[in-house]
Amino acid sequence: MPHDFDAAIHLTPLGEHRFAGATHPAYANMVGPYGGVVAAALLNAALQHPQRLGDPIALTVNFAAPPADGGFEIDARPVRTNRSTQHWSLTLSQDDGVAVTATAVFATRRQTWSAPEAAFPPGLPAAADLQRLKMPGLPAWTRRYDMRFMPGEAPRMGEGGAPQSLSRLWVREEPPRPLDFASLAAVCDCFFPRIFFRRGTPAPVGTVTLTSFFHADAALLAAQGERHLLGSAQGQRFRNGYFDQSAQIWSDDGQLLASSHQMVYYRE
Amino acid sequence: MPHDFDAAIHLTPLGEHRFAGATHPAYANMVGPYGGVVAAALLNAALQHPQRLGDPIALTVNFAAPPADGGFEIDARPVRTNRSTQHWSLTLSQDDGVAVTATAVFATRRQTWSAPEAAFPPGLPAAADLQRLKMPGLPAWTRRYDMRFMPGEAPRMGEGGAPQSLSRLWVREEPPRPLDFASLAAVCDCFFPRIFFRRGTPAPVGTVTLTSFFHADAALLAAQGERHLLGSAQGQRFRNGYFDQSAQIWSDDGQLLASSHQMVYYRE
Repeated sequence: MPHDFDAAIHLTPLGEHRFAGATHPAYANMVGPYGGVVAAALLNAALQHPQRLGDPIALTVNFAAPPADGGFEIDARPVRTNRSTQHWSLTLSQDDGVAVTATAVFATRRQTWSAPEAAFPPGLPAAADLQRLKMPGLPAWTRRYDMRFMPGEAPRMGEGGAPQSLSRLWVREEPPRPLDFASLAAVCDCFFPRIFFRRGTPAPVGTVTLTSFFHADAALLAAQGERHLLGSAQGQRFRNGYFDQSAQIWSDDGQLLASSHQMVYYRE
Repeated sequence: MPHDFDAAIHLTPLGEHRFAGATHPAYANMVGPYGGVVAAALLNAALQHPQRLGDPIALTVNFAAPPADGGFEIDARPVRTNRSTQHWSLTLSQDDGVAVTATAVFATRRQTWSAPEAAFPPGLPAAADLQRLKMPGLPAWTRRYDMRFMPGEAPRMGEGGAPQSLSRLWVREEPPRPLDFASLAAVCDCFFPRIFFRRGTPAPVGTVTLTSFFHADAALLAAQGERHLLGSAQGQRFRNGYFDQSAQIWSDDGQLLASSHQMVYYRE
């Protein structure tokens, strides 16, 4: 039996640049599928494309309309392939037109001078010392992640607002699954919308665009395996229907694996 | 006489979704044109498209190859138009193929609950109390901005490295020009590459992808006018040929107008 995540991003080649996929009930969101698994399916089209060069550096996914439950087609084209970089244009379509557009940059990396700058948050409790989030009424996809929020940093539902939206959690797939680029792309979208934290109540929201940068290579992801990742997310500005949200995904030994940024629509 | 910036982003309609433009020597970079003015020209195609809905919320620009000096064509298509949002796919092409791909999200905004979260940096000197950057050997585009770095935060060239890459500056166009969405998109790319700060020496670099989120509406931009903006930029991770850079653009009265994120290729 494959993991539900692999079933959800499974693609069947239909032609040189065309793939067939389908939404999976295990990753259902409030309306349509969880955005992270949509991002992963789009990335997967480039990952399994015979003309792929190197590994993902960046992925931008634009949610133009929520995909309906059922089948979809992904068009994945390498628009330009250079010596060490490759640029992709991707779309996810259903009968009524394009639901999602995306672009991706892939590259072969060489070993160079390297340095961290952002610091792994100090003094956090271990995943084993925290409780897994159990919150009734959440959509199916949330149960495909084991989420363990830091004390006081779980989403606030009906408990009043908070002056800032920073929240951090240990997160891994449920059941566990070894980390790869597709699942890293998906977990970049696992963060509850920042407005839930600031206002302390749920609100109708929808990500309109999600950009993720991959700092890790395949070896770093393999070394992380199935263990919990540290996720951290915060917004900078909420204004007239849109807010931004920036996130970091860290290995459990303190390496920044991905950074991710999204703009989210909200209604009052 | 139009401002050089308006000349550099000027487009002539060629057909329903097609526009002709040309690089401008005032915005030349080391290789090809300054990425910010390329981003602005692409956004401008959507801004002046007859089917445009609302104002820009997000723009992602992928630099697949440096455009050659001379003419180019932009293809700008509204892929999906919803009640309040519109998704764009854009490409900039020259004779040898696609040089730049982009996506944009536009939206009409309603007045809603709004709140800041990121804080305007306190205690900074005024632009009038700082010297304009004068550094020999920089490409032409840098002279189209009046850049006034905070003390100790100017790019370090041959002065040794630094443990972190944060730098902040007052910046406006030179000569002054009223702020609008196109120039806001351009100034999001005005930051010298973070590796110059960390290593203290120039290095061959190139932005591969740039994502900017617009928190301002047209009225906020008009209120800012020609005055200096506060720019702030920092990297999080430099690793095997790529680093990220996140930036903020603030009005001079402390409103976050845009946040922007890029991945940059570097060689040692």
